Amino acid sequence: MAEEAEVVKNKQVVLKNYATGFVKDSDFIIKTDSTMSLKVPESSSKGVLVKNFYLSCDPYLSFLMQKSDSSLEAQFSRFSLGSTINGFGVAKVVDSRHPKFEKGDLVWGITGWEEYSLIAEPDSLFKIEHTDVPLSHYTGLLGMSGLTAYGGLFEVCNPKKGEKVFVSAASGSVGLLVGQFAKLTGCHVIGSAGSREKVDLLKNKFGFDDAFNYKEEQDLDAALKRYFPEGIDIHFENVGGKMLDAVLLNMRMHGRIAVCGLMSQYHQEKPEGLYNVASILIKRLRMEGFGVFDYLHLYPKFLDLVLPQIREKKITYVEDIAEGLENGPAALVGLFSGRNVGKQVVLVARE
Amino acid sequence: MAEEAEVVKNKQVVLKNYATGFVKDSDFIIKTDSTMSLKVPESSSKGVLVKNFYLSCDPYLSFLMQKSDSSLEAQFSRFSLGSTINGFGVAKVVDSRHPKFEKGDLVWGITGWEEYSLIAEPDSLFKIEHTDVPLSHYTGLLGMSGLTAYGGLFEVCNPKKGEKVFVSAASGSVGLLVGQFAKLTGCHVIGSAGSREKVDLLKNKFGFDDAFNYKEEQDLDAALKRYFPEGIDIHFENVGGKMLDAVLLNMRMHGRIAVCGLMSQYHQEKPEGLYNVASILIKRLRMEGFGVFDYLHLYPKFLDLVLPQIREKKITYVEDIAEGLENGPAALVGLFSGRNVGKQVVLVARE
Repeated sequence: MAEEAEVVKNKQVVLKNYATGFVKDSDFIIKTDSTMSLKVPESSSKGVLVKNFYLSCDPYLSFLMQKSDSSLEAQFSRFSLGSTINGFGVAKVVDSRHPKFEKGDLVWGITGWEEYSLIAEPDSLFKIEHTDVPLSHYTGLLGMSGLTAYGGLFEVCNPKKGEKVFVSAASGSVGLLVGQFAKLTGCHVIGSAGSREKVDLLKNKFGFDDAFNYKEEQDLDAALKRYFPEGIDIHFENVGGKMLDAVLLNMRMHGRIAVCGLMSQYHQEKPEGLYNVASILIKRLRMEGFGVFDYLHLYPKFLDLVLPQIREKKITYVEDIAEGLENGPAALVGLFSGRNVGKQVVLVARE
Repeated sequence: MAEEAEVVKNKQVVLKNYATGFVKDSDFIIKTDSTMSLKVPESSSKGVLVKNFYLSCDPYLSFLMQKSDSSLEAQFSRFSLGSTINGFGVAKVVDSRHPKFEKGDLVWGITGWEEYSLIAEPDSLFKIEHTDVPLSHYTGLLGMSGLTAYGGLFEVCNPKKGEKVFVSAASGSVGLLVGQFAKLTGCHVIGSAGSREKVDLLKNKFGFDDAFNYKEEQDLDAALKRYFPEGIDIHFENVGGKMLDAVLLNMRMHGRIAVCGLMSQYHQEKPEGLYNVASILIKRLRMEGFGVFDYLHLYPKFLDLVLPQIREKKITYVEDIAEGLENGPAALVGLFSGRNVGKQVVLVARE
């Protein structure tokens, strides 16, 4: 007879109603009456049961909480009302029926916003092999944000020493890393952000060559001409809208644009038009959308590059850690008011 | 004492005034009182003097006749008032001070819209080695149009057998070749054009799998969904504006868009906005502008592919030849009323 499985309480962040525009605290409920059996059910042929330690707050999560019938958004699988939301996180395996994972393994990947998660399809989980760096870094620098920055910059843009790089939303978790990876490659890097404080940090803490507050610029085209008198070779796009339109006017011949996010457009009724499309033709630009899932196979190569840089303290990384799952919704909501600097993380449980 | 050079009359097509919008006949004058000495002046260290046979009518020529201070157009070197216009053509070398060319050589490349041209910088001229095909083909199929179609399709889009390809302005000189090169690669190819006659030709003469008249479609998105129920893998863009916006909604994951021209936008006061930019991110699209000058080094490889296909009559090619330099302006103007099918050529002199 099988051993009786321990059953524990399992606090969860559940989608209460669809968001309209940026998510609000009131779109969530914290459900405290669920329980979880700490054994993968026998019906799950390769399931893994994990205890969650850290969760990653990412802008795309808000996108998955919208109710929308637009043909674009419909291509995403959005969260269901009344269900626990999910996203990237760091966790420890409590029980496993998957040959790749065993009890005690540390992992990062898609998990639930709850204390314990049963992951039915754990193939995209990564086992954490290096624990001489903070475990929380696997929500960002050593997880999705880092691999996104790495893939977008090196695979899409192929930067060369001396090239001029512009990063929008540069103080976000991905932008900060793109800027630093580009600096390590010998590029000249300028970022934009939405407050003086963030601009100061970009210049004085994160090693950007220069930075500006886009909210203080009446004319983004003029601002870019001031910071890039010879034009932009590489643009890492997190924002979209007017900024992307101004960037198109300031790209150099054969420039590359990695489209990583379009934060300014996610919650508009109708997106803003892009008018300077002719620049793509005239300057032979390459504009390419990508997502971290395109680059999962590069993770070992990415670690080889970035782990030594972390150990030698050549990369500056900042985390804003909200303590407690119940504070997760507010941490996520804060992303959209531009409150945080660096990676916003939610601590669910200590190791 | 140097031999006295023969001096001949040299009819020329001269820009009379800047065009506003599409070029008109009245924007040109035919100048009949110029003369040309048939010897490269000793001051020209590497000049070549040619007798022009055929000239190529291309949409971009109209663009170079606009007076505009927009920052985009300013990046092109436009034609000067009172000067002979120039473009791609086929010619014979009459005299040469360039080591690569000698009297009697047939060449194609940038030359003047006149009977004889002195080409000061002939480095981008190609010597014509194969004359078992019509010489006029070097204005198009074996010249700029062919190399443009080849570079855009194979270098930018990397087509694979079975992929779905959409070509806008498919009955133009480049579009016709893109469609046929894609068919030779085993793709499923659909084109759009602006008249029923052209649509019939695409389907019945040029081997497109299907085609439609965009002017008869109220809703371009719906039309594309009808012709591409599974979506578009590769789009070859000649038009821009609303068509490109509808295409973005219908691309498949990891689709490629080669931006070869934006004909619908060249002469607008303000370009139309592109609203479906989010598709680039969501579907991880690559959109890339290119020009034939990026692919000149591929010309020998291109000839290796295309010459056998021409000889085996596996490529259908149509030329619309206007006879006489004085009919050149009308032939060029006709491009923009959608009059011609296939390559519009001007015959200046017979071989």
